[in-house]
Amino acid sequence: MSENKEIEIMQSVYDKNDEVAARINSELTQSGIYAINVMGAPGAGKTTSLIQIVKRLNDVTPYVIEGDIEADFDTKTLQALGIKAIQINTGGACHLDSPLIGKAVEDLGIKNGVLFIENIGNLVCPAEFMIGEHAKMLISTVTEGSDKPYKYPLAFEKADIILLNKCDLIPYIDFDEDFFMKGVRALNKTAPVIKVSGKTEEGFDKVVSWIMDKLNA
Amino acid sequence: MSENKEIEIMQSVYDKNDEVAARINSELTQSGIYAINVMGAPGAGKTTSLIQIVKRLNDVTPYVIEGDIEADFDTKTLQALGIKAIQINTGGACHLDSPLIGKAVEDLGIKNGVLFIENIGNLVCPAEFMIGEHAKMLISTVTEGSDKPYKYPLAFEKADIILLNKCDLIPYIDFDEDFFMKGVRALNKTAPVIKVSGKTEEGFDKVVSWIMDKLNA
Repeated sequence: MSENKEIEIMQSVYDKNDEVAARINSELTQSGIYAINVMGAPGAGKTTSLIQIVKRLNDVTPYVIEGDIEADFDTKTLQALGIKAIQINTGGACHLDSPLIGKAVEDLGIKNGVLFIENIGNLVCPAEFMIGEHAKMLISTVTEGSDKPYKYPLAFEKADIILLNKCDLIPYIDFDEDFFMKGVRALNKTAPVIKVSGKTEEGFDKVVSWIMDKLNA
Repeated sequence: MSENKEIEIMQSVYDKNDEVAARINSELTQSGIYAINVMGAPGAGKTTSLIQIVKRLNDVTPYVIEGDIEADFDTKTLQALGIKAIQINTGGACHLDSPLIGKAVEDLGIKNGVLFIENIGNLVCPAEFMIGEHAKMLISTVTEGSDKPYKYPLAFEKADIILLNKCDLIPYIDFDEDFFMKGVRALNKTAPVIKVSGKTEEGFDKVVSWIMDKLNA
């Protein structure tokens, strides 16, 4: 197959995805749902962060769509906490796409609240696909190192809010916060960067304030 | 586009890739090169591990192909240590493929030694593409958590050797080694799993012994 043909096919995949994403976004808005696409590398602490966020939401109802290649640990953990959560297993695919989300939203049957869509653990592919979200939350970690914005620019560029997780481990590792922030700001002038720790629970009040501002906007 | 058409196109991409990979593998073998495809999530410590391995290789000449979406920090770090390294920037693509490697191998002009091909930081896509390697080395980390084999099975299944990095941080985190190993062994009965730390240098002698055994086989 020619390279042009491959590019043409990929373009058609993106166009179809974005069309469905726009429809989902509009339907969610009409149902009073604010949807957040939660992205991060494997083991960045996406589910742990969601648990910290959800328990601070007070009167706002949380819903979670959990994306994984395989397994459903995280969904079971969330459900055990009384959170309405549904699992998507992509069976190999490296990102969630909007047709998958469309079906999950229907199955969840949700209204008035915040929908967190936890994407596949991958700092590359998820950033390329809109899935009907109102905002993208990127979770990066100090243990991944301070060069991540330079190496994985798209995720940092597209994020509306960035959580820098596992900050409790800073004393034990070499993490250059200035270099990290310089990399982030070269790509993204506006997204708040909030230092958090799933272990000490530091920073999650600020994350929830940001979400409440969006809900009340 | 129909789903069948998409599957057919992906199959053709895989077939073409594997055909080129087989040719590269044969050429490398003829040149006395043992090639290792180094895979791991973003920030798993792939380059740091390579540095620890390379400095223990003694008489064996190391070569490195560095795959990144953007930036060339790691190549410069390796070159500053006197290692023959070449950068591939995929400009967005989430894995290395064999045509990219074919060109880089030509450019490097290598003979007799070990070629480390550091793949894009991604625990999903690289495992699907052969790139001419003789072995796959997977670098997982304790900070990513003990559930990774269950969530990202293909990389663990295909690995010939698994490094469990950042072991110096075990005292500060919750890492369930038994659960991790159970997950690995359900997928992969034979690959050695070696605990290492880029910081304390623990474990890299064992990794190099494994490589030397392969070279002398």
